[in-house]
Amino acid sequence: MAAPIDFYFDFSSPYGYFGATRISTLAKKYGRTVSWRPTLLGAVFKITGSGPLPTLPLKGPYSKRDMLRTARYLDIPFNFPDPFPISTQAPARAVYWLEQQGPQQIESAVLALYRAYFVDGKDISSPEVTAAVLAPLGFEPAKMIAALGDPAIKERLKQQTTTAIDRGVFGSPYIVVDDEPFWGHDRLDQVERWLAQGGF
Amino acid sequence: MAAPIDFYFDFSSPYGYFGATRISTLAKKYGRTVSWRPTLLGAVFKITGSGPLPTLPLKGPYSKRDMLRTARYLDIPFNFPDPFPISTQAPARAVYWLEQQGPQQIESAVLALYRAYFVDGKDISSPEVTAAVLAPLGFEPAKMIAALGDPAIKERLKQQTTTAIDRGVFGSPYIVVDDEPFWGHDRLDQVERWLAQGGF
Repeated sequence: MAAPIDFYFDFSSPYGYFGATRISTLAKKYGRTVSWRPTLLGAVFKITGSGPLPTLPLKGPYSKRDMLRTARYLDIPFNFPDPFPISTQAPARAVYWLEQQGPQQIESAVLALYRAYFVDGKDISSPEVTAAVLAPLGFEPAKMIAALGDPAIKERLKQQTTTAIDRGVFGSPYIVVDDEPFWGHDRLDQVERWLAQGGF
Repeated sequence: MAAPIDFYFDFSSPYGYFGATRISTLAKKYGRTVSWRPTLLGAVFKITGSGPLPTLPLKGPYSKRDMLRTARYLDIPFNFPDPFPISTQAPARAVYWLEQQGPQQIESAVLALYRAYFVDGKDISSPEVTAAVLAPLGFEPAKMIAALGDPAIKERLKQQTTTAIDRGVFGSPYIVVDDEPFWGHDRLDQVERWLAQGGF
């Protein structure tokens, strides 16, 4: 069995959203699964000295334009959300809680949460909103909200973010295929060749 | 006549080199010319608070790997140079001096200088090396070296870098097609669609 593709992302990252909508198709084409690794970019930015794209001088105004244009180019539904960016502890914790229940619903949950924020403009930083978004997948909201406040789940996200940083993750999406790292949705063409040829 | 494509770049930028090898073909395909705009990224980094990629925490080790892999992916000759990065006043001034002589040799000069640094490992920060690289194009080295020290040419580069920053240029390559900005060689696919469709 080939190893899963590690897909590191932050729920507040538009490029993470673009990548998330495309990585599963790519993985399936080459007989792989995706290991969904939500992380907190805020912790990463403390190390790199960077910050959310739209807040950066010069890069900020460009990046917003690029996000909107890239969505049109890829034909992915996208509405620039307000507020942006947001804290993403709630949706990230939800994914790690779901992982403990089994792998079946994780991908649907990630895509539903991303769409809720970047298409429908719902503020998924709120545990209540995250729980409501996941309710149609069969999770009882009160149980989900309790899980999001569980110290063990909080600790799991912290530890996963530390592991990601130790592995060199500094942006979103950050994709690892058989120890080869790729940063950015715009490296999916290289990811595909790597999967097809086993390296190049 | 359609407007030229503005191609902003720094001679010390591997991604600028990758973009430079590909932009002319793209421009010709759509009946455009390229306006080659060398700039000094050091001046830009003072504003953005960024720095040369390999010096950045986490991003540094990744970026070197990405440059080497991207060159293989695109099948572009590339040897990671030492020293890196370098000051690029000399080759940038050479381009603005050539521009005053007429547009004929600019593209050949840009590509020759980039290849000298990123393929042959020549340190083009030196006026003597820059002049030697351009000698085969028919420019007498002593005359070129004198031009690179000319206060008017020095001023021209400073003014062009300021103009670039005023226009929002924050990286290399940075490509402007009919007022639409594209950052990075990995946006050439979007540049192509923009040229083909006149926007999207």
